[in-house]
Amino acid sequence: MTSIDAVLDRIDRDLDQSVGRLFDFLRIQSVSTDPAYKDQCRSAAEYVRKDLAGIGLEASLRPTEGHPIVVAKTPQGETNGKGPRVLFYGHYDVQPVDPLDLWEKPPFEPHFETLPDGRKIIVARGACDDKGQAMTFIEACRAFKAVTGKLPLPVTVMIEGEEECGSAHLFDFVKANAGELKQDLALICDTSMWDPKTPMITTSLRGLVYEEVRLTCADRDLHSGLFGGAAQNPLRVLSKILGALHDENGRVTLSGFYDGVRELPDDIKADLEALNLTADEFLTPVGLKLPAGEKGRMIIEQIATRPTAEINGISGGYTGEGAKTVLPGKAMAKVSFRLVGAQDPVKVRDAFREFVRARLPADCTAEFTNFGLAAAFDLGFDNPALIKTRAALAAEWGRKAVTVGEGGSIPIVADFKRLLGMDTIMVGFALDDDRVHSPNEKFDLTSFHKGMRSWVRILGALAE
Amino acid sequence: MTSIDAVLDRIDRDLDQSVGRLFDFLRIQSVSTDPAYKDQCRSAAEYVRKDLAGIGLEASLRPTEGHPIVVAKTPQGETNGKGPRVLFYGHYDVQPVDPLDLWEKPPFEPHFETLPDGRKIIVARGACDDKGQAMTFIEACRAFKAVTGKLPLPVTVMIEGEEECGSAHLFDFVKANAGELKQDLALICDTSMWDPKTPMITTSLRGLVYEEVRLTCADRDLHSGLFGGAAQNPLRVLSKILGALHDENGRVTLSGFYDGVRELPDDIKADLEALNLTADEFLTPVGLKLPAGEKGRMIIEQIATRPTAEINGISGGYTGEGAKTVLPGKAMAKVSFRLVGAQDPVKVRDAFREFVRARLPADCTAEFTNFGLAAAFDLGFDNPALIKTRAALAAEWGRKAVTVGEGGSIPIVADFKRLLGMDTIMVGFALDDDRVHSPNEKFDLTSFHKGMRSWVRILGALAE
Repeated sequence: MTSIDAVLDRIDRDLDQSVGRLFDFLRIQSVSTDPAYKDQCRSAAEYVRKDLAGIGLEASLRPTEGHPIVVAKTPQGETNGKGPRVLFYGHYDVQPVDPLDLWEKPPFEPHFETLPDGRKIIVARGACDDKGQAMTFIEACRAFKAVTGKLPLPVTVMIEGEEECGSAHLFDFVKANAGELKQDLALICDTSMWDPKTPMITTSLRGLVYEEVRLTCADRDLHSGLFGGAAQNPLRVLSKILGALHDENGRVTLSGFYDGVRELPDDIKADLEALNLTADEFLTPVGLKLPAGEKGRMIIEQIATRPTAEINGISGGYTGEGAKTVLPGKAMAKVSFRLVGAQDPVKVRDAFREFVRARLPADCTAEFTNFGLAAAFDLGFDNPALIKTRAALAAEWGRKAVTVGEGGSIPIVADFKRLLGMDTIMVGFALDDDRVHSPNEKFDLTSFHKGMRSWVRILGALAE
Repeated sequence: MTSIDAVLDRIDRDLDQSVGRLFDFLRIQSVSTDPAYKDQCRSAAEYVRKDLAGIGLEASLRPTEGHPIVVAKTPQGETNGKGPRVLFYGHYDVQPVDPLDLWEKPPFEPHFETLPDGRKIIVARGACDDKGQAMTFIEACRAFKAVTGKLPLPVTVMIEGEEECGSAHLFDFVKANAGELKQDLALICDTSMWDPKTPMITTSLRGLVYEEVRLTCADRDLHSGLFGGAAQNPLRVLSKILGALHDENGRVTLSGFYDGVRELPDDIKADLEALNLTADEFLTPVGLKLPAGEKGRMIIEQIATRPTAEINGISGGYTGEGAKTVLPGKAMAKVSFRLVGAQDPVKVRDAFREFVRARLPADCTAEFTNFGLAAAFDLGFDNPALIKTRAALAAEWGRKAVTVGEGGSIPIVADFKRLLGMDTIMVGFALDDDRVHSPNEKFDLTSFHKGMRSWVRILGALAE
């Protein structure tokens, strides 16, 4: 039996105790957004600190202007193999429980239930998000400590208490403690599986450029009967410009827009193809049928790994009831771009402004305001830690781990990259039916159990 | 001396008396929109009735639910030459006088003033619009009667009292009295000169098709991070459609849009060219420089004799302060078309709807509402009465009469055409500085004097 097998064996044998510890954690009503739960939040932080100290980490509560942050790390001088130093991030706070009357049992009384399909689930607020998920990592560390006497690599753990209310103090905390928190790699367990049998790693988050453009043509609103034909109409100018933002194949036409956009490696692409996410599955629930992105790209590419241009709003002229034959003097649009790979947000912003100005009649003016300028986070498919993590997950789940990009953003991941120069590997075991943020939140016992085993394998692989 | 010369001579000799009669008319405070002036409106109607009866017409006040309409006509059996039967339309009501403190003298105390450039002007509310203008026609009739004993052709006069408050009862009145009011030709004296030395005939009014289109893509607003790329965006669809409404040369791209649009005859075009209305003159006052209409067309064509497509309003998505990364489910635009010549409003409306539908992704829908469907009024440059009127005006003013189209609409002209099948010739003597609807409204004595002489020549010419 290798040492990894021994640790996995320990996870299996200790499962009831692991569940017991999770239940204790779930009983603490750490609703961060409601000041009435301030003491409970502190209790949850203290519970985590004590638990981490119990597996030999130097753990402390670090005050913020809001709820405290738990930081724990491998003691100085303890030898932990030759793997990378990792920072694990999670959160001990949970969402409010309203509407309470929709809970079948009290939200802070964790218990087992069995679903009609035989799945055993843990039901409680936070069972998944993020107490259950964070504990998969901590339990993996505990098992290593129990079996091998130490962790396989230097671990720093940061568990915050304000994720569900905007992480208001986290950015400043990370900035102020950059020297202490900067490791070789960050790990987060707060995302989903692809499906109950397929593990998933979130490898990229799209960036964002958000622009508002205000066009002025005439210096007043005009009567379209008197001036219509001769006087330029900013809504016509705007439509012409925005109508040219995409070509016939759905590609964005800004100059240099695709600079820095990487093609997926063939194997990753093949994996995504195998997932076969159909338009029917993704678009039908919102009343649509046809993918609107770049032709020849899978839906999963369109929403995750390809950049986009969207018109988020347009206003101008008369928009009330009935008819008014106004020829407006001004018009406004909000336009945003989701970025991927190494696209440069400043260059995209400038290319958009140039695109507008180049199409502007000489007697019309455009003013721009920027409301967002963030680069994408992109792990890179050749990242050695990613390759090891994929292999570890495949070994545990018996099938390839899907690597996907997420269309939106997780601010702390961008902060880790920007403030600490550190990449993040996001692995999570949530399922689509976990009712996260809703009544009767649950976490599959399998997710919890195999989640712990997954982290054992991942930490073992990273340590090699 | 021909009889026309004799009538013109009479106009000249009787000028002081004509002015005196106009002043009497101007003293009546016939503000139609304010119920406090109801009796004064009736007095003005009665004044007109009596005046018309005085020149031998059968004149009566015709009640409506608002102010009465004066109708007067050549007595049955009176021989009036072989010319067309004409209906003259004008109005005895005037605009309110607010703000009263901006009037240099009381608005209903007509008097002469002399401008720095030597022009003698009549100042009072209604001096031009429309008492002064209408009286140019009535005085011409009076002079004919005085000199020749009769009018040169059968004349019906209809002077209403609600033009300045929307002519609410005129349409029904014309419809109910169609048999009586239908003549061969309508005449109106309520428009302008091209400039103080150049007479002008308004020969066309543009029609209007006004459509609202509402697009629906997704059945709810979506998050652009999660759905952006794959889900269709109605603002993108709308921009693409509306951005294609005009081609690179400013021409409207709807199928068959220019069917029924007539080219100006060469002589009319040459006349318009000679006017040399520049972009500087027309657009600079509203902050613009470049004509936005069809390339190769004069500004005066763009605003008067060519059809247009305008976007009057667009709304959709988030248009408040700052950024919201919404991918909207719906978007709306109001689009209108000014029509000329024989363009068919129903065909234009249908072509627009087809244009939108043809460009709609299969999973998006469009709903349309129509708020306007009016054909253009277009006299036709070969109209014999127009040719005679042009010649008459040229004889009086010593230069060619300009024939122009007006970009907006004058509802009664369309009604005459639609209800009575009758064309209208619009000749007027207002000048740009007449302050119509504003304090210190005036009418040049020359406009009044040569206006009367013009009608003498026009009636004489039509009678031949």
